[in-house]
Amino acid sequence: MWTFDAAPIDYWRKTYGFAPDQRWLDHVRLSAIRLPNCSASFVSSNGLVLTNHHCARDCTLSVSPKDSNYIETGFAAANLGDEKKCMGLYVDQLISIEQVTDRVRAAVTATAAADQAKQRAAIIGTVERECAQATNLTCQVVSFYQGGIYSLYRYKRYSDLRLVMVPEEQIAAFGGDPDNFTYPRYNLDMALLRVYENNAPFHPADYLRWSTQGAAEGEAIFVVGNPGSTGRLNTLAQMEYLRDIGYPAQLAAYKRALAIFNTTIARDSALSRQYENQIFGIMNSQKAVTGYRAGLIDSARMAKKRDFESEFRARVNADPALRARYGSAWDSIAAAERGVTAMAVQARNYGFGPSGGLAGSTLMGMSAQIVRVAAESSKPDSARLPAYRGAGLENIKRALVADRPINPAFEKLAIAAQLRAAQQDLPPNDPFLRATLAGRTPEEAADALVNGTHLADVNVRRALVEGGAAAVAASNDPLIVLARAIDPLNRGVLARADSLNAIISANAARIGQALYATYGTALPPDATFTLRISDGVPKSYPTNGTLAPYKTTYYGLYERATAFDNKDPFNLPQRWVTRKDRLSLSTPFDFASTNDIIGGNSGSPVINRNAEIVGLAFDSNFEGIANRFLVNPDIDRTISVHSAGIIEALRKMYDGARIADELQGK
Amino acid sequence: MWTFDAAPIDYWRKTYGFAPDQRWLDHVRLSAIRLPNCSASFVSSNGLVLTNHHCARDCTLSVSPKDSNYIETGFAAANLGDEKKCMGLYVDQLISIEQVTDRVRAAVTATAAADQAKQRAAIIGTVERECAQATNLTCQVVSFYQGGIYSLYRYKRYSDLRLVMVPEEQIAAFGGDPDNFTYPRYNLDMALLRVYENNAPFHPADYLRWSTQGAAEGEAIFVVGNPGSTGRLNTLAQMEYLRDIGYPAQLAAYKRALAIFNTTIARDSALSRQYENQIFGIMNSQKAVTGYRAGLIDSARMAKKRDFESEFRARVNADPALRARYGSAWDSIAAAERGVTAMAVQARNYGFGPSGGLAGSTLMGMSAQIVRVAAESSKPDSARLPAYRGAGLENIKRALVADRPINPAFEKLAIAAQLRAAQQDLPPNDPFLRATLAGRTPEEAADALVNGTHLADVNVRRALVEGGAAAVAASNDPLIVLARAIDPLNRGVLARADSLNAIISANAARIGQALYATYGTALPPDATFTLRISDGVPKSYPTNGTLAPYKTTYYGLYERATAFDNKDPFNLPQRWVTRKDRLSLSTPFDFASTNDIIGGNSGSPVINRNAEIVGLAFDSNFEGIANRFLVNPDIDRTISVHSAGIIEALRKMYDGARIADELQGK
Repeated sequence: MWTFDAAPIDYWRKTYGFAPDQRWLDHVRLSAIRLPNCSASFVSSNGLVLTNHHCARDCTLSVSPKDSNYIETGFAAANLGDEKKCMGLYVDQLISIEQVTDRVRAAVTATAAADQAKQRAAIIGTVERECAQATNLTCQVVSFYQGGIYSLYRYKRYSDLRLVMVPEEQIAAFGGDPDNFTYPRYNLDMALLRVYENNAPFHPADYLRWSTQGAAEGEAIFVVGNPGSTGRLNTLAQMEYLRDIGYPAQLAAYKRALAIFNTTIARDSALSRQYENQIFGIMNSQKAVTGYRAGLIDSARMAKKRDFESEFRARVNADPALRARYGSAWDSIAAAERGVTAMAVQARNYGFGPSGGLAGSTLMGMSAQIVRVAAESSKPDSARLPAYRGAGLENIKRALVADRPINPAFEKLAIAAQLRAAQQDLPPNDPFLRATLAGRTPEEAADALVNGTHLADVNVRRALVEGGAAAVAASNDPLIVLARAIDPLNRGVLARADSLNAIISANAARIGQALYATYGTALPPDATFTLRISDGVPKSYPTNGTLAPYKTTYYGLYERATAFDNKDPFNLPQRWVTRKDRLSLSTPFDFASTNDIIGGNSGSPVINRNAEIVGLAFDSNFEGIANRFLVNPDIDRTISVHSAGIIEALRKMYDGARIADELQGK
Repeated sequence: MWTFDAAPIDYWRKTYGFAPDQRWLDHVRLSAIRLPNCSASFVSSNGLVLTNHHCARDCTLSVSPKDSNYIETGFAAANLGDEKKCMGLYVDQLISIEQVTDRVRAAVTATAAADQAKQRAAIIGTVERECAQATNLTCQVVSFYQGGIYSLYRYKRYSDLRLVMVPEEQIAAFGGDPDNFTYPRYNLDMALLRVYENNAPFHPADYLRWSTQGAAEGEAIFVVGNPGSTGRLNTLAQMEYLRDIGYPAQLAAYKRALAIFNTTIARDSALSRQYENQIFGIMNSQKAVTGYRAGLIDSARMAKKRDFESEFRARVNADPALRARYGSAWDSIAAAERGVTAMAVQARNYGFGPSGGLAGSTLMGMSAQIVRVAAESSKPDSARLPAYRGAGLENIKRALVADRPINPAFEKLAIAAQLRAAQQDLPPNDPFLRATLAGRTPEEAADALVNGTHLADVNVRRALVEGGAAAVAASNDPLIVLARAIDPLNRGVLARADSLNAIISANAARIGQALYATYGTALPPDATFTLRISDGVPKSYPTNGTLAPYKTTYYGLYERATAFDNKDPFNLPQRWVTRKDRLSLSTPFDFASTNDIIGGNSGSPVINRNAEIVGLAFDSNFEGIANRFLVNPDIDRTISVHSAGIIEALRKMYDGARIADELQGK
């Protein structure tokens, strides 16, 4: 994940016999563009933009006609006039990068950390404003290596995008949740947009040509896009905490949540629609966290990390100046992680109500908020907990007095599950257990609380929110009584966690800076959702006792559909059934390569040394999920749609000769 | 893996709504037959026999014409006259089972274990002889539950088998070593033989009809065949030893051996042909042992085992008679395993020379044998180490004086690798290291030994073997000198290992008997290469982050070949390329089911409740390798060729309408 101002030319020359010049780098950088949450590229002289299906999902939905839905039906504009404007969508093209580290550093003169942060924010604001005024571009100062470098990124923004073509989601995300994050894969995860200027197709000076062949196994290829976030500079202590404490607790919570949803649906199948998205979200997170943790359990990956950290620390310690400045950072983090570990059981149990997409009790969550809102409202803004500052407080209040359906059966399950988990985790005399259970079983407590509370009534909630601290103090609603008892416990763990996390963040920043001071740009910085280029090769890999091939073909799509008897999510859109015989089934469909990507890279062009499109990155394999923290190029793979598979689909399935010709420059 | 005299009818009724009568069981038993190392079945009224390709490999080779090779080309007899007789091959049909436990027990009256063993062998011999004389059948007394039951199995033997059809090995074992033991799979692992009597096709009274459809996902199906060997009654202590000590050492030895072969081949690629089979064998064992160990590391499987063992011991201890007889068996094994563990490092290092298929030094192996042969020859036969008793001694001598090529470079690598491993394992002052290294590095020692010895000369070896103890004592050949020093060390660990293993065997037998005494036939006995019936259903399963489908189709064969660019071992026989368009690609090819099988089951018929063939078992999935010790029906799968895939291949690829019609009763 190299930045464009530190491309490792010597390394590429040595590895691939390929040393691109500045022109090549500039051309590739200008051809690549960024969507608000994804990557993309210009792929024709008429402003055609290639990205993933899931990156254009909102646009596709928004331009669908009333009586239809392009997510389900797919869409291919027959001509320019048929292309559909995506309101609010834009792309950014990276025009230039300038080092502003010295200017930022010079402006930070204070000694107190809080004052430094203010000075830093101020100078960054100034640099960005000056840049915007001088250039009319979108300007952003990006911090790499946690403050090791500050770079000014200047973007040209294009705000008229139109939908040209999307396949059906059924083929774009064929295999659904099971196949997500895995390989071999059979997904046409593509969308084509077009940039317009003055109501006419834009003609970019730089765009990526289409490869006639795609990439052979072992051939050097490059993914150009915007990886969102990695934690590879995390210390061993941070990773061990996640491996042993953080992630196992998270996975247990997912499991608990899924059990609650599934029990609820089993009792009343009409609810399955209502919880579908939440369940999907939890399963998705479960898979991702399982993958992250798999990397942390992998002794080979961890051994490499351990070796690197030893070497890095030895280098820092060998230089008196570096040692004085950064030498203690690792031990400080390790000590803080021990603190986090020591309080982990309390921290995860002294919570109250819904957390994220998990199946928490809505009633319990609201009771906690009512009690806290009352307390926070009476403080000056700056003294409040962060979530209650500024507009936060009013937003929370508004949510509390909005009408929302409550399912008492679900509430009881959720409270009982939370209390059972707490009962298993905490010692019997713990104050949280004493307050919540008061001698009852979790199920008895849940029944009593849900049967006894009146918080399901929006008027009751409004009276409490508007009545403030006095009303809350006077309430004898069992959930409010309980929330008053829990609130101080929760505040206690929050405060302690905040102070430990601040120590971890400050020392992580020192380590980032030490890394840059020690290795310079020889090691790329953690991902920052800015443009990077990652080299690699299409390559088979060992998995499940055998080998996964470097590519898949359309044979495999029909194999997987047929092998599952065409059952959802392995069923095919109708056109892929009726038009099957048009396809050359041996056409490559997706492929796996050793390039290093992560979320944010979705939609990245994959190019060969001629800067021609050979693929469209859309996911990683299951093993590769672990690359958030620790890479293992033996088994981590980027998964892309193959350039030949795209052309075959456009021509044979979507009557898209107009578009395929444009891509192929015909 | 139920025996036919203890089929769990109630369990089947409850699980599948299917309760076969005795006629069904008899019909299935008589339709199933056993090859010397595999399972098979009668599948037509004209004596057609279905088994796996790899079960008929020797026969296929032996009947191949001089200018061709049916392993490579495949073969399908155009008519009866074209069917090729497999010399020496036979099949056994299980005619009846009779309990003889009481008769065996009554004959064992001695108190000393050695005398008991003799009495037992004598009565078993008598029973078998009487049976053979009375019935003209092949009779075998089989011990189940390590002596819990003795059953007399009577077989009718058919000795005229002819080859009717085999596909090319390339399609029978498509995917080669990588795909071996894995799923999804695309193998036509089939062969058809025919039983003749009096030079005409035999007409079996019982044979299995062909299913028109094959099995649907979730449908009850049965595998009928002869599982070879399992270790499921092993105690936790035995499994923990294998998991923590035995298998890791074995895997390290495989790795070392492969490194030696690969280094040798890298230096001289002409040798790659010579070592091909050994390398393949080691990789095969490596995969199997990795799979066994994966099961032992799997905490879910081990937890189930732990629970079962606790319950079993509690039941034994709850009954005073059982407790007195069997109660101490587990602790005795655990103590012996601690002993084995304590000596494991010495036991694996005090060896000398080639062990099994591993890359040991031939010269070192021969020197050890020469020294030992001299010592053992001077003892009376019964006092010798077991391998040197009877004809053993002469066989070993003959091998020592046979001419064989020695590759000095390989010998040096092998000795150095063995000594390096020993150096890492043993304390520096260990007598083995003192004797072998004598202050040298492993590489120096290996060079000196190989350069200094004359054992590569067959005449030198002959003089030593023929000269006996005196010649060996007088030799100053550096390898003989070394072997004299090592021999007592090796004898020491051998003797200790023998006595510990005897304790383990004796107590394992007590546990087998305790199991039968406690649970009766409610738990099936460990596999004994006798006829069993295993129930299950075709079923998808979670793997590699997603789902494996319950079946594959011919689409998948072409997918896998194309995805690997038709590279070996993913290339197709020519007819599968040229005749591809004849195939209906959506025809099921292989399928995965929850039936429980293990080596020996190869070639087993898979039948539905109408006793119709729905498949032909040939392997298990990667997860299922672990079922040697611990089953996990959530992920363990039997892999079979689908009945429809067989017919499709016969008709479309092999001009086999004659045979397909016969199978389908047309």
